[in-house]
Amino acid sequence: MHIAIPLYPGFTALDAVGPYTVMALTPGCEVSFVASELGPVIDDQGKPTLVATTTYAALPGPDIVIVPGGPGTTEALGDRALLDWLTAADAHTRWTTSVCSGSFILAAAGFLTGRKATSHWGWRDQLAAFGAEPVADRVVFDGKYVTAAGVSSGIDMALTLVARETDDRTAQTVQLAIEYDPEPPFDTGSPEKAPADLHAEAIALINT
Amino acid sequence: MHIAIPLYPGFTALDAVGPYTVMALTPGCEVSFVASELGPVIDDQGKPTLVATTTYAALPGPDIVIVPGGPGTTEALGDRALLDWLTAADAHTRWTTSVCSGSFILAAAGFLTGRKATSHWGWRDQLAAFGAEPVADRVVFDGKYVTAAGVSSGIDMALTLVARETDDRTAQTVQLAIEYDPEPPFDTGSPEKAPADLHAEAIALINT
Repeated sequence: MHIAIPLYPGFTALDAVGPYTVMALTPGCEVSFVASELGPVIDDQGKPTLVATTTYAALPGPDIVIVPGGPGTTEALGDRALLDWLTAADAHTRWTTSVCSGSFILAAAGFLTGRKATSHWGWRDQLAAFGAEPVADRVVFDGKYVTAAGVSSGIDMALTLVARETDDRTAQTVQLAIEYDPEPPFDTGSPEKAPADLHAEAIALINT
Repeated sequence: MHIAIPLYPGFTALDAVGPYTVMALTPGCEVSFVASELGPVIDDQGKPTLVATTTYAALPGPDIVIVPGGPGTTEALGDRALLDWLTAADAHTRWTTSVCSGSFILAAAGFLTGRKATSHWGWRDQLAAFGAEPVADRVVFDGKYVTAAGVSSGIDMALTLVARETDDRTAQTVQLAIEYDPEPPFDTGSPEKAPADLHAEAIALINT
């Protein structure tokens, strides 16, 4: 099974690498970072953090697509090479998915019209403007379209996908392999749990 | 504050990128992936996933070092360039830290002798052979040396470091920014929680 993670300027590294590490450890899965051209892609820190090792042209028919989010999403909504590849790839996929604001790219491709979907809490409600129905869950399935909440949620989504594509036992084994027994130091990981006065500050961290 | 994450062949991407994303979002922090030479470094999947953007020579005095783990650790224990840089950098650091089997590299540099430390659950007890005292906690502090458990634990460690270096409020805001409100699909993230018959299979996933 081939999993493609497209990279575009301004993506957030953890959105991509959480699912990458989970899927790459799963037997029978091959994961590729893809872009128009081979080579490093500039991330949301302005650095060439991750490398595209496959071009869009070389991987037209992946089984699973995982679109990361990040501050670069807005510009990526007008990236014809990305959207054309996504549209063609979606005709082949078993699952077309996103992490964080990556759901806006799925929406721009027309996949989420009339579907339930999620995104980073700070932008989630804006999915309605694209014809999607925003849902405040961490991982949202609607048919073969799966969207995850902000940044770190890609790990939860990827393990859930592994369970659906293989079996619970395999996903449980991958979870143990990455020792995913989280102990967040605070209980502020969602806007419902965090004090209200942190919300605007958290958004500012992402936008600067 | 400058955070250095050294990359060596066979590192696990999530070990490095969890802390990278957390620290990079923290005001006043600059995070660099470092290696002997600039350019992509081959990860545990045999792919040039992450890029070193700074050389060891160019960053001799970081404030924080975070050493990732991975199947390449064993070979890295004999990497003189890495160990020499670590030894020199440690003279400057406020925190010298590791994720997963990266603690064996700290131990090989002599930092953990007589200290409490942790690692991935599959190898943790072997830290005793290096003179450290293995502890089955997710994040272990002993002086300025901080070690985290397997792979995904680097996110918890990084948020804890942010709280110590700045304040709780800033760390809480970063946690909200990355929507770190984990919902693992199973409760199998530690060997105590996972069925015993999954243990060997999880180790096999990492070693193949």
